[in-house]
Amino acid sequence: MRLQPLNGHVLLEPVAPEEKTKGGIILPDTAREAPDEGVIEALPPNGSDEVAIGDRVLYKRYAGQEISFEGAKRRLVPVGDLLAKYVRADAIPD
Amino acid sequence: MRLQPLNGHVLLEPVAPEEKTKGGIILPDTAREAPDEGVIEALPPNGSDEVAIGDRVLYKRYAGQEISFEGAKRRLVPVGDLLAKYVRADAIPD
Amino acid sequence: MRLQPLNGHVLLEPVAPEEKTKGGIILPDTAREAPDEGVIEALPPNGSDEVAIGDRVLYKRYAGQEISFEGAKRRLVPVGDLLAKYVRADAIPD
Amino acid sequence: MRLQPLNGHVLLEPVAPEEKTKGGIILPDTAREAPDEGVIEALPPNGSDEVAIGDRVLYKRYAGQEISFEGAKRRLVPVGDLLAKYVRADAIPD
Amino acid sequence: MRLQPLNGHVLLEPVAPEEKTKGGIILPDTAREAPDEGVIEALPPNGSDEVAIGDRVLYKRYAGQEISFEGAKRRLVPVGDLLAKYVRADAIPD
Amino acid sequence: MRLQPLNGHVLLEPVAPEEKTKGGIILPDTAREAPDEGVIEALPPNGSDEVAIGDRVLYKRYAGQEISFEGAKRRLVPVGDLLAKYVRADAIPD
Amino acid sequence: MRLQPLNGHVLLEPVAPEEKTKGGIILPDTAREAPDEGVIEALPPNGSDEVAIGDRVLYKRYAGQEISFEGAKRRLVPVGDLLAKYVRADAIPD
Repeated sequence: MRLQPLNGHVLLEPVAPEEKTKGGIILPDTAREAPDEGVIEALPPNGSDEVAIGDRVLYKRYAGQEISFEGAKRRLVPVGDLLAKYVRADAIPD
Repeated sequence: MRLQPLNGHVLLEPVAPEEKTKGGIILPDTAREAPDEGVIEALPPNGSDEVAIGDRVLYKRYAGQEISFEGAKRRLVPVGDLLAKYVRADAIPD
Repeated sequence: MRLQPLNGHVLLEPVAPEEKTKGGIILPDTAREAPDEGVIEALPPNGSDEVAIGDRVLYKRYAGQEISFEGAKRRLVPVGDLLAKYVRADAIPD
Repeated sequence: MRLQPLNGHVLLEPVAPEEKTKGGIILPDTAREAPDEGVIEALPPNGSDEVAIGDRVLYKRYAGQEISFEGAKRRLVPVGDLLAKYVRADAIPD
Repeated sequence: MRLQPLNGHVLLEPVAPEEKTKGGIILPDTAREAPDEGVIEALPPNGSDEVAIGDRVLYKRYAGQEISFEGAKRRLVPVGDLLAKYVRADAIPD
Repeated sequence: MRLQPLNGHVLLEPVAPEEKTKGGIILPDTAREAPDEGVIEALPPNGSDEVAIGDRVLYKRYAGQEISFEGAKRRLVPVGDLLAKYVRADAIPD
Repeated sequence: MRLQPLNGHVLLEPVAPEEKTKGGIILPDTAREAPDEGVIEALPPNGSDEVAIGDRVLYKRYAGQEISFEGAKRRLVPVGDLLAKYVRADAIPD
């Protein structure tokens, strides 16, 4: 099975928080803060003009809802709460 | 008798929470958290473009209202508060 | 005299709460919780596409206002706060 | 002088609270709760499709504002906050 | 100089509170409550369909803002927060 | 450099609070309350129908944001939060 | 990689707070307040009528979200929360 987002949500796979601090100290799991970032796994039924599957995106803090799908963490976020996406430095601006 | 949802709500049969933790420990009823999931039993009078009867769906936390119908728990949730539905992995995306 | 609801409200006669618990214990009045249900006695001036007089309906918790009319409890509820109605099991879905 | 309501308000003369309890006990003024009812004395400049001068109406709790006009209590209530009106039992429904 | 109200406000000269209680006791200034009433001194640039300069009006409690203009108290109130105006008893209703 | 207001804001130079009380007592700086007034120094890109550069205006209490520009206090206020402007007493009303 | 803002946001590089007080005292980092200012590094996909890349802008206090991008602080702010931009004193007004 897979998840099909509804009502203008995207399905995100969270980006793992960094395991080291800038000083190089390895942090235990509980001390790492998950960033507000993820990779888009699925789009809403009517798609999106601004993002595509595979895009790595930043979203508004606390936007959407964390869910558990087949034992893994995912997040469903309204497409309107996406703040930015990563693009190649030489990509033509939208 | 059956229930006909109104004003853009769907009628959901809640999905039973898992009885075991990942470690295999059987939890008593009170320690299990009901997931925000259900199976659609009825659609609003004007139907829905995104879901159908029988779809297993996730909904926004606390959305809608739990009711008791003929001794069983049901939930009436605005169709706009559905976050995602389960589809077969090989299903053509909407 | 009778009451004519205004501004998109329906007039409901509350459904009496059950007098017994599932275990068969008879509860005193104060221990019974009134369900969020009623039977429609009157429609707003411009009617309704989804409900009719005589329908037994569920409404959003705390929606509308309880009133006293000729010594009896009634409730005026916005038609948009109705969640579902009871229909015969063999009724053709709306 | 008289008061001409503005911006979609109606001018109501409050209905006097009942002087007796159901058990027949006469209550002092301070123990009687004013009902959310009144008789319409004036309509807004653009009138109303649902009510007329002289109608006895129920309004949403705390809706509008109590005023004092020539020493008497009146209430200005948005016409959209009227919940119902009294009609003769044999009146043709709106 | 004079004040020209903007953005749909009217300029009101507050009506002085009564100096006596109903029992005839003369109250000191601080014990008198200013009524939510005023006389219209200026209209917004696009005028108003319901009020005119010179009208004595009632406004929603706490609506608008009290200002000091050349040493005198005035109040700027959104025209949509006016509740009623005084008219002659024999005036033709709007 | 100068500041060009955006998104429907005006740039205001605050009006200095009065240095004397009505009784003629000179107040120290901290005891004077800045009035909600200013003189318009710049308009938003799409201009305004109701105000012009140089107008002295009153604005809604706490509207907009105080800023520091080249060491001087200025205020950026949404044009829709302006309440009134000063005009010459003999000016033709808008 | 670079960041492409979405949903009407601009990407800002924060302006460094001043290192000296007016009196010439050098402040430690923690005592300096970051101004609500930044330089636009990227526009939303549909551009903007009022600002361009390179503009130094003021934004509404607390608007948008601070992010970390490749180790540097950036801020994503809705274009509608920009209050003003710096322009050359001799620039023709918009």
